[in-house]
Amino acid sequence: MKFSDQEKAVLREIQQDSAASLATLADRVGMAQSTLWRKLQEFDAAGIVTARVALLDPAKVGAKLCVFATVSLQDHSEASLAAFSRLIDRHPEILECHAITGSADYMLKIHTADVESYEQFMTNALLRSDVVRAVHSSFSLKALKRTTSLPV
Amino acid sequence: MKFSDQEKAVLREIQQDSAASLATLADRVGMAQSTLWRKLQEFDAAGIVTARVALLDPAKVGAKLCVFATVSLQDHSEASLAAFSRLIDRHPEILECHAITGSADYMLKIHTADVESYEQFMTNALLRSDVVRAVHSSFSLKALKRTTSLPV
Amino acid sequence: MKFSDQEKAVLREIQQDSAASLATLADRVGMAQSTLWRKLQEFDAAGIVTARVALLDPAKVGAKLCVFATVSLQDHSEASLAAFSRLIDRHPEILECHAITGSADYMLKIHTADVESYEQFMTNALLRSDVVRAVHSSFSLKALKRTTSLPV
Amino acid sequence: MKFSDQEKAVLREIQQDSAASLATLADRVGMAQSTLWRKLQEFDAAGIVTARVALLDPAKVGAKLCVFATVSLQDHSEASLAAFSRLIDRHPEILECHAITGSADYMLKIHTADVESYEQFMTNALLRSDVVRAVHSSFSLKALKRTTSLPV
Amino acid sequence: MKFSDQEKAVLREIQQDSAASLATLADRVGMAQSTLWRKLQEFDAAGIVTARVALLDPAKVGAKLCVFATVSLQDHSEASLAAFSRLIDRHPEILECHAITGSADYMLKIHTADVESYEQFMTNALLRSDVVRAVHSSFSLKALKRTTSLPV
Amino acid sequence: MKFSDQEKAVLREIQQDSAASLATLADRVGMAQSTLWRKLQEFDAAGIVTARVALLDPAKVGAKLCVFATVSLQDHSEASLAAFSRLIDRHPEILECHAITGSADYMLKIHTADVESYEQFMTNALLRSDVVRAVHSSFSLKALKRTTSLPV
Amino acid sequence: MKFSDQEKAVLREIQQDSAASLATLADRVGMAQSTLWRKLQEFDAAGIVTARVALLDPAKVGAKLCVFATVSLQDHSEASLAAFSRLIDRHPEILECHAITGSADYMLKIHTADVESYEQFMTNALLRSDVVRAVHSSFSLKALKRTTSLPV
Amino acid sequence: MKFSDQEKAVLREIQQDSAASLATLADRVGMAQSTLWRKLQEFDAAGIVTARVALLDPAKVGAKLCVFATVSLQDHSEASLAAFSRLIDRHPEILECHAITGSADYMLKIHTADVESYEQFMTNALLRSDVVRAVHSSFSLKALKRTTSLPV
Repeated sequence: MKFSDQEKAVLREIQQDSAASLATLADRVGMAQSTLWRKLQEFDAAGIVTARVALLDPAKVGAKLCVFATVSLQDHSEASLAAFSRLIDRHPEILECHAITGSADYMLKIHTADVESYEQFMTNALLRSDVVRAVHSSFSLKALKRTTSLPV
Repeated sequence: MKFSDQEKAVLREIQQDSAASLATLADRVGMAQSTLWRKLQEFDAAGIVTARVALLDPAKVGAKLCVFATVSLQDHSEASLAAFSRLIDRHPEILECHAITGSADYMLKIHTADVESYEQFMTNALLRSDVVRAVHSSFSLKALKRTTSLPV
Repeated sequence: MKFSDQEKAVLREIQQDSAASLATLADRVGMAQSTLWRKLQEFDAAGIVTARVALLDPAKVGAKLCVFATVSLQDHSEASLAAFSRLIDRHPEILECHAITGSADYMLKIHTADVESYEQFMTNALLRSDVVRAVHSSFSLKALKRTTSLPV
Repeated sequence: MKFSDQEKAVLREIQQDSAASLATLADRVGMAQSTLWRKLQEFDAAGIVTARVALLDPAKVGAKLCVFATVSLQDHSEASLAAFSRLIDRHPEILECHAITGSADYMLKIHTADVESYEQFMTNALLRSDVVRAVHSSFSLKALKRTTSLPV
Repeated sequence: MKFSDQEKAVLREIQQDSAASLATLADRVGMAQSTLWRKLQEFDAAGIVTARVALLDPAKVGAKLCVFATVSLQDHSEASLAAFSRLIDRHPEILECHAITGSADYMLKIHTADVESYEQFMTNALLRSDVVRAVHSSFSLKALKRTTSLPV
Repeated sequence: MKFSDQEKAVLREIQQDSAASLATLADRVGMAQSTLWRKLQEFDAAGIVTARVALLDPAKVGAKLCVFATVSLQDHSEASLAAFSRLIDRHPEILECHAITGSADYMLKIHTADVESYEQFMTNALLRSDVVRAVHSSFSLKALKRTTSLPV
Repeated sequence: MKFSDQEKAVLREIQQDSAASLATLADRVGMAQSTLWRKLQEFDAAGIVTARVALLDPAKVGAKLCVFATVSLQDHSEASLAAFSRLIDRHPEILECHAITGSADYMLKIHTADVESYEQFMTNALLRSDVVRAVHSSFSLKALKRTTSLPV
Repeated sequence: MKFSDQEKAVLREIQQDSAASLATLADRVGMAQSTLWRKLQEFDAAGIVTARVALLDPAKVGAKLCVFATVSLQDHSEASLAAFSRLIDRHPEILECHAITGSADYMLKIHTADVESYEQFMTNALLRSDVVRAVHSSFSLKALKRTTSLPV
């Protein structure tokens, strides 16, 4: 899909602030409100916008610690992959899970309150599972950048 | 900060859908609209909600390839850290950057269109920088889970 | 086997272009056509030339992505090695497979259309096999050199 | 580019044997010679066939040892990349060179006569270069599969 | 818990020398003996001081060799963790055992007489256990610093 | 140095509790108080007991997080080793520092308040030093055993 | 055991050349033949000299390739260690086998004729054994020093 | 070079015991003394036997600790290689040094008295050298096999 410069401007704006009024947004991107409205309808219809969400401050909601964990599975049978998939879905501490290249099978992004609660989560939710062989955890010490805006 | 069960329900809802009308949201969490309204005002005032954003489909906006790259720096002088920080800010392809434990200095989450554009980005933006010593890239082959909802 | 400088020139030429006419080739290497003809017959008879093949452009035939994957086996019984050997033969995506020194058992060179099709191939053809324990994949980001010409 | 089943059959055949006569090839793929002739012309014109080459037996031409070497560079300035590129081109022992994901910069496929000649090559051609920082070599102990046929 | 500068001075002193007389200690930190006495009582009551111990010279008691060993378990069932916990408690050679982030499960600090006795200990106590999969040992060649004083 | 069973019992006792009265200790190890008194004098005179210290609870004195960090130096000149030695001495967060076998130069045991303060310490005290090349940190998630008692 | 400078000279000499006549040796180390004779008798009686052996040229006896292989075992039961011990004894290709610190269990020094024979040996003798889990091989490319003389 | 079974028997014998009398050796391998004598002369003349040496017991000559150390160099200029070569020659603690495949440049076999003397040797002889970048040491915990006999 190809976007005009103006369409790109709209996409960039709503990735930063999806709650602005149509008037404000029209002003920011220099479009007529009616054109902008049609454009936004198109983006939704085409599945370009998948959700409008509120982002919370991890420290203020008790989920301050961010961990990148790579996970290897015991085996890769369909049953194991299905079990792992269910495990991933069940735990809200896991925000992202990607099958990745390299030596580990999966990269997980996890948020918990602190080091103790991560230890509990890792031991009980991950390591105790039948399908997980090993977990390698890297703690985020500091976030230099954290955005959900894709480059457009 | 401690939240009641009802407050947690609100936080979970707006992390999934921040564009629902007050009536819909009040209905979902079983609160009076006026109470809910005050609650939402409080969340904003306390900095609990940091932004309301639109999430886009990476494939549909030409940013399909997701890469986790660990980066080591040449040195850790204040000047180098500042230069690296500017580099991170300047490139919209970099969505996240965390200082992490383990052997690499930083974990980056990067989105580009495809393998070729990632090669261009890595060579020109990262490796050619004076402050970057080495980059280790893992490609996401498939995303099993991708949410911005923190566990509350 | 020892080759004269002229024989080496012939070998180098046919490794670059095996479809040139006898006249053209004779010209390029400075030999009489009849001598060259006998020489080429000898190379074939001695098994020095193992095949004459057409090389295709990976991008144009839908096999653009090139991956180097190292594979470790569950065990090294004769049965497992035979099963792995059959797996290797069965999949045209695998162009090369070498038992190698170092920590992994095998180095594979694989071509697929793109990242998605590689994920499918790796999961279904390699990881789901009973004999494969682990796969470590490195993607080719760019080919600086790609020839089939051996140094002679 | 999309190919019909018959076109694919042609591509598979010429990847195995590019020296067969038109009659033989037409017979193998079940096409009329004139149609096949036009098809082959098209493949060449479209750059689908990039070369027709003779493949040699490594053991018989004194290039028996096959090594996969990963190479890291001192830095990634344009000057260094250009110098490395020239180094790669200059040495016929290097058959392939790919920029790869993972921790090393480049994957090289190298052929030499034996362990001694590889040691000479590695020390003199690679390690002594100003732009190469480190080389990690894995020797092929045995080739289980070696083809130039791409999957079509 | 927040400490005044004077309280911190006391804590630092008793971490270095817990056998000094009340008079000496009062003198060192500049407090009245009676105040100091109450303070020490408070520290004990609050569980701030967990023990008063004699530190021995490893070389003089036949426990000269200090080893940092990382241990991975076969699995992480409750039964295995309990068995590992008992193993850790039973062996006085193990001074510390921590569940750690990174690729290994546990970090152990071990003291034995010499290389031979460590080999015996590792083989018999650790590797022969049903729950231990692998042990990676790093020997301390020289201790540059060794204190039990926490930073206060 | 060889110890009798009774002497070993004394050493084990004072490693657990150095503040017990002579009467209590004599009772625990079954020795006459006068004999025990002489024995303790001997242990001190021979340098077997190096210190009597109070052990504090890390969580209660604001030094809860325990980190094992391996550190590599830029070079190993006398000047660099001396500078590193001073760095180690200067920082009370570093409780232990050992030159170790394996690939890293030093193993450090560090205590700080939490993840944020460790990030500050690592960046400012370790990485910014001229002599430190790289730091690899493993966080203690849970201490299963923590004693200062050597095996006697 | 403590040696005088003259004794050390004798030990150094016989480690280089054990076939020299008593007269020659006496001359080299500046001792009377009778004294030297008694000294050599003492060295044998005390088990200081364990053998007098001929060293062969690896290339000339068809054992040119020298490989350092690290081997991990499936488990460390007494039965497995005994089976591994027998395997080591049975194969003359294995010259040395050491239990080592670090992540692998054993370090082997192996000599075979060439790369092909090593592949055969590794596959059949090592990998096919029930007790061996993994083998990591490093080939000696060139020996810069090779002596059996211990430092005395 | 090809050897008869009887020649092989002789080579095996003298690799175990080079000090046996001609009569004893002739008896062991079932050859006439005169034939055996000529054979031994031939082996020496052809350079098959490179030395006859006494092997000492490491523990009894104060060189008990055996270490395998992998060493990486700062660079691979001719000057650096020459300097490293001289370093290797100068230190009798180093018994073997091989350029090896894999990620480290050299594999050294080192003997010292104990852990302390190894630390001294590594710091002063290896790490302080201008040409050495890094050293990775693995200690031999126990030698299961130690022979100088090549397989013939």
